Amino acid sequence: MIRDIDITRLIIEEFSKDFLQNIKIDVAIVGAGPSGLTAAKYLAEKGKKVVIFERKLSPGGGMWGGGIGYPYIVVKQGHEILEEAGIKCIKRDGYWIANSIEAVAKLVAAAIDAGATIFNGMSVEDVMVRDGKVCGVVVNWSAIMEANLHVDPVSIEASAVIDATGHDCNIAKIVERKYGLKTPTGKVEGEKAMWADEGEKKTVENTTEIFPGLYVTGMAANAVMGAPRMGPIFGGMLLSGKKVAELIAEKL
Amino acid sequence: MIRDIDITRLIIEEFSKDFLQNIKIDVAIVGAGPSGLTAAKYLAEKGKKVVIFERKLSPGGGMWGGGIGYPYIVVKQGHEILEEAGIKCIKRDGYWIANSIEAVAKLVAAAIDAGATIFNGMSVEDVMVRDGKVCGVVVNWSAIMEANLHVDPVSIEASAVIDATGHDCNIAKIVERKYGLKTPTGKVEGEKAMWADEGEKKTVENTTEIFPGLYVTGMAANAVMGAPRMGPIFGGMLLSGKKVAELIAEKL
Amino acid sequence: MIRDIDITRLIIEEFSKDFLQNIKIDVAIVGAGPSGLTAAKYLAEKGKKVVIFERKLSPGGGMWGGGIGYPYIVVKQGHEILEEAGIKCIKRDGYWIANSIEAVAKLVAAAIDAGATIFNGMSVEDVMVRDGKVCGVVVNWSAIMEANLHVDPVSIEASAVIDATGHDCNIAKIVERKYGLKTPTGKVEGEKAMWADEGEKKTVENTTEIFPGLYVTGMAANAVMGAPRMGPIFGGMLLSGKKVAELIAEKL
Amino acid sequence: MIRDIDITRLIIEEFSKDFLQNIKIDVAIVGAGPSGLTAAKYLAEKGKKVVIFERKLSPGGGMWGGGIGYPYIVVKQGHEILEEAGIKCIKRDGYWIANSIEAVAKLVAAAIDAGATIFNGMSVEDVMVRDGKVCGVVVNWSAIMEANLHVDPVSIEASAVIDATGHDCNIAKIVERKYGLKTPTGKVEGEKAMWADEGEKKTVENTTEIFPGLYVTGMAANAVMGAPRMGPIFGGMLLSGKKVAELIAEKL
Amino acid sequence: MIRDIDITRLIIEEFSKDFLQNIKIDVAIVGAGPSGLTAAKYLAEKGKKVVIFERKLSPGGGMWGGGIGYPYIVVKQGHEILEEAGIKCIKRDGYWIANSIEAVAKLVAAAIDAGATIFNGMSVEDVMVRDGKVCGVVVNWSAIMEANLHVDPVSIEASAVIDATGHDCNIAKIVERKYGLKTPTGKVEGEKAMWADEGEKKTVENTTEIFPGLYVTGMAANAVMGAPRMGPIFGGMLLSGKKVAELIAEKL
Amino acid sequence: MIRDIDITRLIIEEFSKDFLQNIKIDVAIVGAGPSGLTAAKYLAEKGKKVVIFERKLSPGGGMWGGGIGYPYIVVKQGHEILEEAGIKCIKRDGYWIANSIEAVAKLVAAAIDAGATIFNGMSVEDVMVRDGKVCGVVVNWSAIMEANLHVDPVSIEASAVIDATGHDCNIAKIVERKYGLKTPTGKVEGEKAMWADEGEKKTVENTTEIFPGLYVTGMAANAVMGAPRMGPIFGGMLLSGKKVAELIAEKL
Amino acid sequence: MIRDIDITRLIIEEFSKDFLQNIKIDVAIVGAGPSGLTAAKYLAEKGKKVVIFERKLSPGGGMWGGGIGYPYIVVKQGHEILEEAGIKCIKRDGYWIANSIEAVAKLVAAAIDAGATIFNGMSVEDVMVRDGKVCGVVVNWSAIMEANLHVDPVSIEASAVIDATGHDCNIAKIVERKYGLKTPTGKVEGEKAMWADEGEKKTVENTTEIFPGLYVTGMAANAVMGAPRMGPIFGGMLLSGKKVAELIAEKL
Amino acid sequence: MIRDIDITRLIIEEFSKDFLQNIKIDVAIVGAGPSGLTAAKYLAEKGKKVVIFERKLSPGGGMWGGGIGYPYIVVKQGHEILEEAGIKCIKRDGYWIANSIEAVAKLVAAAIDAGATIFNGMSVEDVMVRDGKVCGVVVNWSAIMEANLHVDPVSIEASAVIDATGHDCNIAKIVERKYGLKTPTGKVEGEKAMWADEGEKKTVENTTEIFPGLYVTGMAANAVMGAPRMGPIFGGMLLSGKKVAELIAEKL
Repeated sequence: MIRDIDITRLIIEEFSKDFLQNIKIDVAIVGAGPSGLTAAKYLAEKGKKVVIFERKLSPGGGMWGGGIGYPYIVVKQGHEILEEAGIKCIKRDGYWIANSIEAVAKLVAAAIDAGATIFNGMSVEDVMVRDGKVCGVVVNWSAIMEANLHVDPVSIEASAVIDATGHDCNIAKIVERKYGLKTPTGKVEGEKAMWADEGEKKTVENTTEIFPGLYVTGMAANAVMGAPRMGPIFGGMLLSGKKVAELIAEKL
Repeated sequence: MIRDIDITRLIIEEFSKDFLQNIKIDVAIVGAGPSGLTAAKYLAEKGKKVVIFERKLSPGGGMWGGGIGYPYIVVKQGHEILEEAGIKCIKRDGYWIANSIEAVAKLVAAAIDAGATIFNGMSVEDVMVRDGKVCGVVVNWSAIMEANLHVDPVSIEASAVIDATGHDCNIAKIVERKYGLKTPTGKVEGEKAMWADEGEKKTVENTTEIFPGLYVTGMAANAVMGAPRMGPIFGGMLLSGKKVAELIAEKL
Repeated sequence: MIRDIDITRLIIEEFSKDFLQNIKIDVAIVGAGPSGLTAAKYLAEKGKKVVIFERKLSPGGGMWGGGIGYPYIVVKQGHEILEEAGIKCIKRDGYWIANSIEAVAKLVAAAIDAGATIFNGMSVEDVMVRDGKVCGVVVNWSAIMEANLHVDPVSIEASAVIDATGHDCNIAKIVERKYGLKTPTGKVEGEKAMWADEGEKKTVENTTEIFPGLYVTGMAANAVMGAPRMGPIFGGMLLSGKKVAELIAEKL
Repeated sequence: MIRDIDITRLIIEEFSKDFLQNIKIDVAIVGAGPSGLTAAKYLAEKGKKVVIFERKLSPGGGMWGGGIGYPYIVVKQGHEILEEAGIKCIKRDGYWIANSIEAVAKLVAAAIDAGATIFNGMSVEDVMVRDGKVCGVVVNWSAIMEANLHVDPVSIEASAVIDATGHDCNIAKIVERKYGLKTPTGKVEGEKAMWADEGEKKTVENTTEIFPGLYVTGMAANAVMGAPRMGPIFGGMLLSGKKVAELIAEKL
Repeated sequence: MIRDIDITRLIIEEFSKDFLQNIKIDVAIVGAGPSGLTAAKYLAEKGKKVVIFERKLSPGGGMWGGGIGYPYIVVKQGHEILEEAGIKCIKRDGYWIANSIEAVAKLVAAAIDAGATIFNGMSVEDVMVRDGKVCGVVVNWSAIMEANLHVDPVSIEASAVIDATGHDCNIAKIVERKYGLKTPTGKVEGEKAMWADEGEKKTVENTTEIFPGLYVTGMAANAVMGAPRMGPIFGGMLLSGKKVAELIAEKL
Repeated sequence: MIRDIDITRLIIEEFSKDFLQNIKIDVAIVGAGPSGLTAAKYLAEKGKKVVIFERKLSPGGGMWGGGIGYPYIVVKQGHEILEEAGIKCIKRDGYWIANSIEAVAKLVAAAIDAGATIFNGMSVEDVMVRDGKVCGVVVNWSAIMEANLHVDPVSIEASAVIDATGHDCNIAKIVERKYGLKTPTGKVEGEKAMWADEGEKKTVENTTEIFPGLYVTGMAANAVMGAPRMGPIFGGMLLSGKKVAELIAEKL
Repeated sequence: MIRDIDITRLIIEEFSKDFLQNIKIDVAIVGAGPSGLTAAKYLAEKGKKVVIFERKLSPGGGMWGGGIGYPYIVVKQGHEILEEAGIKCIKRDGYWIANSIEAVAKLVAAAIDAGATIFNGMSVEDVMVRDGKVCGVVVNWSAIMEANLHVDPVSIEASAVIDATGHDCNIAKIVERKYGLKTPTGKVEGEKAMWADEGEKKTVENTTEIFPGLYVTGMAANAVMGAPRMGPIFGGMLLSGKKVAELIAEKL
Repeated sequence: MIRDIDITRLIIEEFSKDFLQNIKIDVAIVGAGPSGLTAAKYLAEKGKKVVIFERKLSPGGGMWGGGIGYPYIVVKQGHEILEEAGIKCIKRDGYWIANSIEAVAKLVAAAIDAGATIFNGMSVEDVMVRDGKVCGVVVNWSAIMEANLHVDPVSIEASAVIDATGHDCNIAKIVERKYGLKTPTGKVEGEKAMWADEGEKKTVENTTEIFPGLYVTGMAANAVMGAPRMGPIFGGMLLSGKKVAELIAEKL
């Protein structure tokens, strides 16, 4: 027989245990879009203790809706990352097409299977900084923030933080406002007009540490560094996620 | 080199082809929560042409947030459905615990791998009825409905329709208002207070054809038939999804 | 030296421990207004394990604002309950006047000092019912509900539940809709027009068990039973809170 | 007999075909107000492949409401453009008066009859830029943007782009923010106070290429170049639309 | 030279004259969707003084967006009405397809050319009733109503009133609430589920006088009489508009 | 020299004194529209202690905006009431026309000069009832109610209460819900369609005591009794306000 | 007998005539608060053709609510202006106190009786400028602007324009943005902290022509010139209104 | 027997008396969070006439919700201030943990018992400044401001003003905008990233007079001076409140 409060107890216990095991981690990834999920997978495979904090209840970022709401994505490069996660890719005219819903579901599954943790419904509202280095994130329930309640957040220590929040580049903006960034102007440069080809190249190139301890990946990388946006072509984002995992794994 | 309009073209072509292949189907499932996804998986495995229409961009329904936003679900019965989809279950005190994010991602993957199609960002705003039998759904983009635009929907023919919209039981309510239901009062009976044990039993029992051509599953089944709700214990919902697949497969 | 994650850890641990100790309790009080706080104090003094679930972050209900926002309350009867909590009362023209801010603060302090627990920012969205008796409450974070997120609640077992939600009488309304109440019409009768004198009398008289396991107190008692409202005179509410404590203590 | 899914099929097929034929065009006009419609008509008459992307479902911009909601417009110059489209003009005191509803309807009809295509309910959220030249627009469904969904847009290649978005001059603002404009300050100069006579002259004069590949017309021309606004006198706008068509036709 | 206040003066004068000429008319049509526009055209052709009051600034109702926002409509019957208005129809598979934007623009132009008047941005908030007969409409600026201002409307006398407000059937609902209708239940029966074939037939059949002086047309006819809805197939609506014109012309 | 806190002091003192002098009055009028103001004037002239409670900061109700926002009103009967208040009336075609702004300002001035008190920004959220008779009103600051704050109201004793809230008839609705009314159905009958002539007659005829101690006047009278509405013709409302003053003066 | 359309006709005719007589005036006052009304009264008394354009339906600005919503105002200087308008002033402690509701009503009446015109529900969204001089205002219905409709305004010629919009100083801000002002910084200086004594002095001193053809009065004068605000002491505002009338009367 | 208007009278009288006694005070504290309450307590104990103006109905600021909504706070230093107020502190791992609800309630009680006054539901919208010194606050009802009503505030004289509004530092921002601050940049420096240890030290250090007559305390001190934020560790805030009390007491 099921007892209702057994369910209550099991869920509270599981969350407490899981959360407390993750208040001191190797890498905190902010945002569970394609590049954040890819970064999480490769970091976890390399044995890092990695947590994604996702603002919404559902991970996936802007990938669910494909292009103008039609659930398909296109890749030119990096399709092997999709296939490694079991996502079916159809080749046509030199591109690979995949279903965007399948893509998100399997990238999430792959990250979790590799050992990454995802905390959803949590917003990163600040970072921790010591001696000029980002050393953690400051989180709160998204629901508390949306309901505009006046409630303090709590802190998570992390050796590295990845801003994978897409073109909003929220974490970079916090650091920009409070300390400045390692960009030409010291500020977020702002994403340029759409140019898939150039954007794809740049997103990997721009994947870098823009402040000690803080890395940018995917669309956030281009937004911070002033490169073009790409639209529903996702290869660069996946490769960017893979690259940031390598950059960090080397360092830690 | 990537050409931007190649991406545009590939996505439009893919959607048109995919959508047009699905305007006449075996089963239309409304809602991509746990019971809808389970139903889709088993129906697809039985060779049925099945499409889930999900109102939001992300499938998963109320499962992402586990209990009070802590991403864990509990099952007493039916854990084998989770494990079949590759979801890790930890046994404790006679229950199985799973991560809710992993659970959604892998149920989605399983449904798609089995051959089901998911159209997201689409709302079912009406059904088709001929000679007293539901024979299709009437869909529109959710964004159009949220933006409150005055735009006509289009129709999809289906031999069976499953209301898997949870305790809102939206499709049952449409049919109730226009024609009445096969329930004791002819109306949606309304869900009763929380009682996990009873609710689990009833959700399977209540999985039935409540109007010719229209089936209810999961929480929608209990809401329509006046049974208790269950909270974050999901076994009954999965079994209900499996049962509705069997009921329909027998008939078609 | 303070370490940020020590604070995180201590708060999570404390909450988990405290919440888990309270998933099976004697009395669940819904609403931390004057009658709920008074009930909590007297029940705790009688050795009952009692928890108040308060929807807002701040307890106090409608008492903070006194009358039309002027922070003063008036009592004719029951001032001894205020004074017992250390609240200064000035006698004038046969009434006692107190500062409403002081009154709330000290009623809260008194309830906590007596041993009651308050969980704030939590909404009771349903009850548990077994064999025709209310046997618990179903709670969720208020922020989740305000942010309109689709997330399941969890259950708390309680031998008795008190509806102290004021003239909204939310819990009585849930039970009315699902099962009916022990009132003349089987429904919430609705509060009558303002009449302080009659209202004060009736609120104590109407403090009763309106469904097996469910008690009403304060303004909720009058709303359910069809008696007048009282305005910023609070003696009846305090006495009602005291009475419900006695009724329940006898039974358990 | 009508079959519902025939309608579904015909509409999806027609849109796919029509949209795919227009992903590489001569001229993309943003905004279907009077100058955008006029430009479309004359460009189409000159054999150009021209598409108007209109944010709302209904074209017409600010013309429907005439002046302060009274459905009449006035022209001093350019009435021959109205009459060419079959719009009845009454001459009085040296001006021509027309019904604003008739004017919009017939300008739309004239543009379509000349061979222009209008896609409504679509917003241009960005442009494409290559080697310092605007070479296309980036579009999404307006409903997706209003519903605030996180969904990627798609690209349309165009040899020339016309900003006909009125005094908001949205496209000019995008280019200003990302690259700067060919205006005295490099920025949008901002529209000056109302002065119909001067505004009418300037709107034609200011109709120009303000960034390689990007033209401004009508009220957008004055807003970008710092000239007066005109109120419900529309001759300058029509002439501006005609002029931009000539400018572009020469170049392409 | 243009003088700004000449424009002001001409517009005010024109509106006053035009509005005052239309406070006593033959037929008031509420709603400028396809059936309202068609009715207006045929009534005007028969020499009736007819005014359409349209709530929005743009006429066209739900026709602009075609099906799910794709700007195409389909007709099976009644395509001759489209062609009469100069709308291009492509025949395919036994249906005619037209561009929905062109269709609206040219139906508006046809109604105006036939002599009908359209007042846009005006809402009908009530009717006039004398001796059990609708004898006029009560109008206000839509902006005033949307801005929720407390401002009185004014009255327009009409020998007949047509409710062409679509499935909201606003005018029928006003009369239902205040006096009851000539329907089986005396109430608005409510539209039934989608069934294009049946709906098309019924919309013409249901075009009738449902209260002395009040006629229903198009989707309003089916909503009032309890018939199916049709989706983006518009022939029945056009024929219904034509029929209501004939019914009224006979009577007046 | 002006001292800032002198202003503070004088205003607080004046309000306290004035409000406390009015907590026991002869007549409480709810709503400062034309009939409420007229009633106040005549009651005050008859020596009654009369207070108008007006929800908004500005009195005048729906009179400011005249007809469709054009600031003019028309009267057929009762123009002498306007002229008595010094309002200029122009006679034309058997009617009197007045400027609506002047009309409100001078009706307010007349009521105040006659000795009536107006408390603005105050909402009547309930009445007091003793032994089946309305004997007062229950008021709160409108701002508190709009800001949705949980704050108790206070009571005002009155020998008679007038519902002059227009077609909302808020006070009648409160009494209807809690006790029933002296109307044919015991309920608010609801206003009928526009018919100025009949409405004018009825509004005076319907001015009556619809529950012991509660009177209705102006548009509220017709709404409660099921009579037509009138539009921007205001003579009946003024006469109704005068009549209610006479009815009450006789009784008290 | 009253005929409904007579009322319609009379109101439309009256408004058209009245508005057309006022499209070329001596002075346009923006805002009907205390200084705008006072200016209107004195200008009209001097024989000027003066129109107040008031955004809301009710004139009076911030005066209705007195101080913190208590309907009383205080004056130290300028009480004779109040008394001239028939407003009762009580002298206490060297100040005069008046009822704020009476004050507004009688200032409005006085302005109208002096011959000023008020158009309410109209917003001034721009000015007219010729050769560096403000020479008119550009108006629209406030409802159209609140409902966010895309509709053109119309123009009114005026020899002088007064910004009486209070501390928002909307008209000064429009001119500041487009041309700059004659203030020390060329911009609106911004109001300083509360200081009734200094503010009262300054508001008269700052009443001036801040751009050719544009005058500021009352709180707008202090906001533009960087002087203190005053709170609910209104003498300076009245004197400022009187002064601006004298300044302009001299010039015209 | 209770008479309703006795309650009305007693509350109005009490508020008037209480408020008028506090229009000239020693110290005005803006914000009733932990540092404001602590400051109030120590200032009152030193015999100062001190009033807290709290924007919300409930004091407590961000303390009610503890960390991420779990009602516990942690202190490292300053726990003796909590214990002095009777708040139970549990020592663990070198920190003290307290229940946040108990903490707020007892800090409020302690401040009131010490003699401080709290006016709730009141917002400080400006300050008074004379000769370069802050000498009072300008207050209004929060409800009036939330309801966006145009109503003047009133003034309170105070020898010192404390900005205890937390990281918004509203009062410092008003003074910054109008006069500039005594900070390195003359502006609010902005709070730095989370660092509990450093933040705790700095909040006490930064507690200072940042403009003649204006002090900052708690989180407002760090926000103004550019120091880190602290999260749910509250010792520094309490000590800051105590320090500001000492600073002011020395001066006055």
